[in-house]
Amino acid sequence: MEVAFYNGKFIDIDQLVVPIDERGHNFGDGVYEVVRVYNGEAFGLTEHLVRLIDSAEAIRIKLPYTLEGFQELILEGIEKSGLKDSVVYLQVTRGVAKRQHLFPEAAAAVAMTIREAKDVSINLREGGASVIVKEDERWLNCYIKSLNLLPNILVKQEAADTGAIEAVLHRDGVMTEGSSSNLFIIKEGMLYTTPLSRHILAGITRANVLSLAKKLNIPIKEEQIRLEQFKQADEIFITSTTLEVMPIVTVDGEQIADGKPGKYTMQLQNAYQAQYK
Amino acid sequence: MEVAFYNGKFIDIDQLVVPIDERGHNFGDGVYEVVRVYNGEAFGLTEHLVRLIDSAEAIRIKLPYTLEGFQELILEGIEKSGLKDSVVYLQVTRGVAKRQHLFPEAAAAVAMTIREAKDVSINLREGGASVIVKEDERWLNCYIKSLNLLPNILVKQEAADTGAIEAVLHRDGVMTEGSSSNLFIIKEGMLYTTPLSRHILAGITRANVLSLAKKLNIPIKEEQIRLEQFKQADEIFITSTTLEVMPIVTVDGEQIADGKPGKYTMQLQNAYQAQYK
Repeated sequence: MEVAFYNGKFIDIDQLVVPIDERGHNFGDGVYEVVRVYNGEAFGLTEHLVRLIDSAEAIRIKLPYTLEGFQELILEGIEKSGLKDSVVYLQVTRGVAKRQHLFPEAAAAVAMTIREAKDVSINLREGGASVIVKEDERWLNCYIKSLNLLPNILVKQEAADTGAIEAVLHRDGVMTEGSSSNLFIIKEGMLYTTPLSRHILAGITRANVLSLAKKLNIPIKEEQIRLEQFKQADEIFITSTTLEVMPIVTVDGEQIADGKPGKYTMQLQNAYQAQYK
Repeated sequence: MEVAFYNGKFIDIDQLVVPIDERGHNFGDGVYEVVRVYNGEAFGLTEHLVRLIDSAEAIRIKLPYTLEGFQELILEGIEKSGLKDSVVYLQVTRGVAKRQHLFPEAAAAVAMTIREAKDVSINLREGGASVIVKEDERWLNCYIKSLNLLPNILVKQEAADTGAIEAVLHRDGVMTEGSSSNLFIIKEGMLYTTPLSRHILAGITRANVLSLAKKLNIPIKEEQIRLEQFKQADEIFITSTTLEVMPIVTVDGEQIADGKPGKYTMQLQNAYQAQYK
């Protein structure tokens, strides 16, 4: 069953619980995490909560729970849901106050939903997906997982309008990340990914895949990938909590290498799935 | 009396009317306007609504009312409020739908509040205010008046922490605008303001002040203002719907010219106020 929680109470997921003047609603003034539950286990839960704490600190929101408090809340929610495979969505905003930009004297507001996970499309997972390339027009602090997702929504929708799964972004010709994913390429047996900076999110799946690559003895370079390099890769994949390791075989309508998911990509995809299977 | 409206109904301002999965609440996925009411008249209402329509179009939200429909709603709200001097806040989001980035099949959600206006501080209006200078870290499409205001909030709060009224922003040394205002300087009798581009909001007050300057025969240049020029101005002021024409006498703690509001600034401030007095 779907579960929802707002400010201390479990509620119906469509219950009206938020006033107009919630700072999420007025400003997108908050941070969030999405956690995947496999077979009743919240995958990478601690890493997600550490990042939530970092994001909140970066935008000066005082969280109403400790890491352990959030952990307990999420585990309680997962149990209530009775779902084995689900997606936990957790957001914290700066609370409710008469609208004005300045920080209010208000307690942060916590919202959570837990819903059944949609499986990643087998066709795409095995056959590969398409992406479009767009200019990265977002703000400069994308390491913060904030609710200000309008630029991400707009390019993701543009991708979907052309049948692509994701829009991958570049700043002045240097790849950053996807609208809700991190980027990887393989070139001559080397795994490349955008280095961490304030321009990209430190993806939990990204870090997990890097550690898997080490175990599999795939050499890694965390360094800038130029758009031309990206398009001339031997293999491309993107990662996220919900997409996991997704092979990309078409970029802006052009086929990458032989148009099939590459062997390193599939090795990493298998290794990723083996962690929860 | 304070008035609030959500999706077709007038409500109590703190009423719980929004579910967790409203796209304002999850993504800041919406646009807004703030209109000042003087003596029962909504100042520049048509201009604000034209801009709302432009913003909505830019992010592909289908508005549920025409310009006339919004006008009627706002006038009804103002009448209900019984307030002579008020601030109308109007926002439209992409509606309620199970959280995912892609545009949902949902009707846009309209929220409005009308509250008593706080008068601009006479001390600041007559004596001038302080600003801090910050890097413009926002996304590249600031001509859209979107709810994604986190970067604006953060710098505005930083300004307030130092006793300043506003943070004024630059991109690579070129001034853009304030976190919720437009920028003007006077140098040797010439009025300069940042030219319109996707990097700044086409302020309604900005346009109004430019037309007043024309009437007053103050020569105008809409051209890039570099940070050094900004700090060496003879006069500085910022404009917004709620701040109107606000003289700036200190930038990053340094006094501008003789540290008093300049004569052109006060001429424009008076001309602005004369329109509604």
